[in-house]
Amino acid sequence: MDTKIIGIAGGSASGKSSIVKILKDELGDKAQVILLDSYYRSFDELSFEDRTKLNFDHPDSFEADRLVRDLLELKNGQAIDMPIYDYVAYERKKETTRISPHQVILVEGLLVLYYPDLRQLFDLKVYVATDSDERLIRRIKRDTIKRGRTLESVLGQYQDTVKPMHEQFVEPSKKHADIIIPTGARNQRGVGLLLNFARQLVD
Amino acid sequence: MDTKIIGIAGGSASGKSSIVKILKDELGDKAQVILLDSYYRSFDELSFEDRTKLNFDHPDSFEADRLVRDLLELKNGQAIDMPIYDYVAYERKKETTRISPHQVILVEGLLVLYYPDLRQLFDLKVYVATDSDERLIRRIKRDTIKRGRTLESVLGQYQDTVKPMHEQFVEPSKKHADIIIPTGARNQRGVGLLLNFARQLVD
Repeated sequence: MDTKIIGIAGGSASGKSSIVKILKDELGDKAQVILLDSYYRSFDELSFEDRTKLNFDHPDSFEADRLVRDLLELKNGQAIDMPIYDYVAYERKKETTRISPHQVILVEGLLVLYYPDLRQLFDLKVYVATDSDERLIRRIKRDTIKRGRTLESVLGQYQDTVKPMHEQFVEPSKKHADIIIPTGARNQRGVGLLLNFARQLVD
Repeated sequence: MDTKIIGIAGGSASGKSSIVKILKDELGDKAQVILLDSYYRSFDELSFEDRTKLNFDHPDSFEADRLVRDLLELKNGQAIDMPIYDYVAYERKKETTRISPHQVILVEGLLVLYYPDLRQLFDLKVYVATDSDERLIRRIKRDTIKRGRTLESVLGQYQDTVKPMHEQFVEPSKKHADIIIPTGARNQRGVGLLLNFARQLVD
């Protein structure tokens, strides 16, 4: 099987997941989504309290080299045991998810265009570019309504880590993109071009 | 005939023309290129001396409403008489070019995503995003070597009109794009997506 890998990067709440969902819905069982977030490091040596204070938007928070190895295995036709991150305990779970090879792998995450070894595996590098104020609005809604957090904590985290990490690592990775999709999933024509491309990758 | 129109905008020397050439080469006689520059206003009321001093990167320098009318005629299956700009005399020529309807019209220019009436005619809005320093290097080479101008005059024009008009009108028009292609024509994968799209528009 010829496995093609599409990397989809972009800022927090830029619309990456919605675009990946559209692609996955179109390709069905022929595609597998892999989230960079599944590869959050466990930091077992730290206390729970300390783990909650980690900077989750920094490149060092992810075990990117394991993701690279896993993608190479999938390309070689071998199944992988994908880690699962426990967002409640702030650590990697003991269990893993068995992932079999697929024709198309969609790799999604803030920083998937940041790591050189990772991005060179991608057959198409996509960056979803959404204005920072729109991203903030979506993040406030998501984290206060869906995740029950206080507005103060959402804004504090945004200013302390999300924004500086975006400016230092995420935004500069845009220059590695093959295409940039403005305004996220509601950009139907831009997403349509991606769908065109993805359809041609499967039988 | 169902005419589809692709608008390709981007800064000076961003690589727009090279991308349009790749698309035109692929589509052959089924596509027609129309340059916004052909619609430079004549400003006959001004002296030659004054015309050479015009700000050629300002939206008011183009007769965008004539371009809109011409595109609507082409979509209606009617031929148009496209103006020809005389870059030596700095005015519109008396002659025109007869353009017949085509399946695909490629509309290229600095500001083609700037004018609302124009961009709403586009079936795909493309912005070619190339770093300003790279664009300046290309422009210096092109204007000093191919056009025989002095370095001083090239840099003076860049600072006086090209850069301020880019920041005021061109760059902000990027937000209307369906897709953004970084680094111009050497971005083969990004241009490949465009080629995919364009091929599907013709029989």
